[in-house]
Amino acid sequence: MLTAFSDEHFMKEAFKEAQKAFDEDEVPVGAVIVCENKIIARAHNMTERLNDVTAHAEMLAFTSATDYLGGKYLNECSLYVTLEPCVMCAGASYWTRLKKVIYGASDEKRGYSKHKENLLHPKTKIVSGTMQSVCKEILLQFFEKKRK
Amino acid sequence: MLTAFSDEHFMKEAFKEAQKAFDEDEVPVGAVIVCENKIIARAHNMTERLNDVTAHAEMLAFTSATDYLGGKYLNECSLYVTLEPCVMCAGASYWTRLKKVIYGASDEKRGYSKHKENLLHPKTKIVSGTMQSVCKEILLQFFEKKRK
Repeated sequence: MLTAFSDEHFMKEAFKEAQKAFDEDEVPVGAVIVCENKIIARAHNMTERLNDVTAHAEMLAFTSATDYLGGKYLNECSLYVTLEPCVMCAGASYWTRLKKVIYGASDEKRGYSKHKENLLHPKTKIVSGTMQSVCKEILLQFFEKKRK
Repeated sequence: MLTAFSDEHFMKEAFKEAQKAFDEDEVPVGAVIVCENKIIARAHNMTERLNDVTAHAEMLAFTSATDYLGGKYLNECSLYVTLEPCVMCAGASYWTRLKKVIYGASDEKRGYSKHKENLLHPKTKIVSGTMQSVCKEILLQFFEKKRK
């Protein structure tokens, strides 16, 4: 019998992506997209390497997931991301019709939820705070390293 | 002496991109990015061809423009786009620190300005309604063709 994995299980995988970003001197945010209990896309922030402010982990994961599925919509998929999505990524997730967003750390400045209106698709479920302390800690470490 | 081109001049170029999208059976939205009176990027919606709902004209143009400039920011650039940007594209333009957005037709359903709060960068100037009737007409024609 197939056992459903926990949110923490998949967030750990997203966190591995954040660690890769950290090692590559990118802002450490990682994401995986899960469909029927299986990871179909994984990505981390690549804004520096690609010299492209739109290359957030979520955006790269959306593109990769739809490429894998061969369909444009992710209505049967969940996004696990270590940091709360920004307005751009929330807007992109709207278009993908994402089933569920699970995020770790809150983004007090740039998070989509700082806006009063819901920017996600009305059908998208939200879970926040999964492994939030480690997801936040790696970001704090990164910016501390940058300031040195 | 260098004469500055009008907004209509560049919107015509964005419209040419929308026409290309129409011919390729894509939702006809086109964009150009202008820096110091010169077009540095041009793109049209490619969501069907790329099977990717994030492949809006603006997103492709942002990536192309930063690639051309070799810098991540577009604070000296203007975006001309035939349709009002959506939340995703507004959020992306925030990250690029775009100087100015000039759009043609309003998007009554999915336009970023339907949200009460400003989703663009606070320094981004906005001009709306440039060549709005042709920009809207091509969209209406497209959806009429689709319904047949």
